[in-house]
Amino acid sequence: MNYREKVRKSFKQQKIMGLIGAKLTGVKKGFCEIQLPYKTVLTQQDGFVHAGIIGTIADSAGGCAAYTMMEEGASVLTIEYKLNLLAPAAGDMFIARSRAVKAGKAITVCNSEVVARTGKKEKLCATATVTLIALKK
Amino acid sequence: MNYREKVRKSFKQQKIMGLIGAKLTGVKKGFCEIQLPYKTVLTQQDGFVHAGIIGTIADSAGGCAAYTMMEEGASVLTIEYKLNLLAPAAGDMFIARSRAVKAGKAITVCNSEVVARTGKKEKLCATATVTLIALKK
Amino acid sequence: MNYREKVRKSFKQQKIMGLIGAKLTGVKKGFCEIQLPYKTVLTQQDGFVHAGIIGTIADSAGGCAAYTMMEEGASVLTIEYKLNLLAPAAGDMFIARSRAVKAGKAITVCNSEVVARTGKKEKLCATATVTLIALKK
Amino acid sequence: MNYREKVRKSFKQQKIMGLIGAKLTGVKKGFCEIQLPYKTVLTQQDGFVHAGIIGTIADSAGGCAAYTMMEEGASVLTIEYKLNLLAPAAGDMFIARSRAVKAGKAITVCNSEVVARTGKKEKLCATATVTLIALKK
Repeated sequence: MNYREKVRKSFKQQKIMGLIGAKLTGVKKGFCEIQLPYKTVLTQQDGFVHAGIIGTIADSAGGCAAYTMMEEGASVLTIEYKLNLLAPAAGDMFIARSRAVKAGKAITVCNSEVVARTGKKEKLCATATVTLIALKK
Repeated sequence: MNYREKVRKSFKQQKIMGLIGAKLTGVKKGFCEIQLPYKTVLTQQDGFVHAGIIGTIADSAGGCAAYTMMEEGASVLTIEYKLNLLAPAAGDMFIARSRAVKAGKAITVCNSEVVARTGKKEKLCATATVTLIALKK
Repeated sequence: MNYREKVRKSFKQQKIMGLIGAKLTGVKKGFCEIQLPYKTVLTQQDGFVHAGIIGTIADSAGGCAAYTMMEEGASVLTIEYKLNLLAPAAGDMFIARSRAVKAGKAITVCNSEVVARTGKKEKLCATATVTLIALKK
Repeated sequence: MNYREKVRKSFKQQKIMGLIGAKLTGVKKGFCEIQLPYKTVLTQQDGFVHAGIIGTIADSAGGCAAYTMMEEGASVLTIEYKLNLLAPAAGDMFIARSRAVKAGKAITVCNSEVVARTGKKEKLCATATVTLIALKK
């Protein structure tokens, strides 16, 4: 099984992605992209997508990006993530893109950006750091 | 309107809480508790509740705890949060409890703990720091 | 060698502690305390102790607290830390106290508090989370 | 006074920079670079520069980058920073480069990278996020 299949299979098993409507839209070595269309059920009190949901796609994108770098037979686990919200999560589509900045035997660190797309315009609305560990199954 | 009503009203307006099934179960000055029952639709690839959903209740509990400390007419916005996952999110119920450790005119900082309850036993599964700003409406 | 000796020896080898004038003042299983007297050379532009120095003692206290929990022969390395500054670092003495909230085979997570002491009064000026990994030498 | 002078003046007032030997080596709108030569007095138990000192230059670079974006008469204060250590801080020179990713009226967020230079080779050894607030004097 190549790394793209491995990541797609793992993403499909994340039932939360189905609940919120997130799709895996890009996988490369050390990189992952997830897209989430706006839905009213995802919002907080002011009608923006909830920070926790922005964090959810930032974290999952980091997890998938890290997983592309890991040896076969290893599973990936988030140790911690940290999200900065830079602008209200307003738009038609939210796109999380994550890149591995360090891929070690045990620890991988990914930086994620989340942009809000309205029409053709993208606006950076959050950045995150995700720290992950490879576990031997 | 007193602070409890203000927080409850704001929580009800967070539609994401309805989607995932989270309930506001405690509000005091500088404190908030949110409970979330386990559901399969909330899980990641290994059957545990997704880290992003644990972060969602940790962040919302921080937001509510901060909101109890803010002047009337101010709204509350998360600037950033950081979550450490200490144990797999396995259990019947997930309880986020957050306390304000600093409540300033502009910035409030809350520390959240999330425990997983199985039967009567609680196990700490995550801690978070949430930094919030008060905005004049 | 017991865990207290192991931690004291490691602390002595941190030459930066000598440069800034920090002392190891408490070691228990899963706990560490470091004290740092105010000095003008440690300050930022407004005369308060620099956030980076507050972070230095918060991180080292976390490292020592984690080290007490680790098996013999393992060395301890900070993966990441996150510091919230809650009040200006003004006072005679700065005291970092750190506790392990999770101590795993690989990953240990410590929460640190830094208080500023002026006379007999302590004021919380920072909190930190420190994530560490045990490395087999 | 233009923004470069303002930042240089503020940097000179940070006495800690003199103690550790850090120099301000670059200032642009929304950007700052700080260089720190290796010295034995800056090290932790294994002979690498202490994580807290890497955090100190990452934080200060973020503070200076943010300060370039702020209105005259405002002072800048770190609310929080978060540092990931990606490789041991081994090298002749440590260079922190920080860029503002969001510059708001109240809140500015900067991303810092710290590289270790040995000869002509640079190696990324840490990344940080720094969240700052503008205070009216």
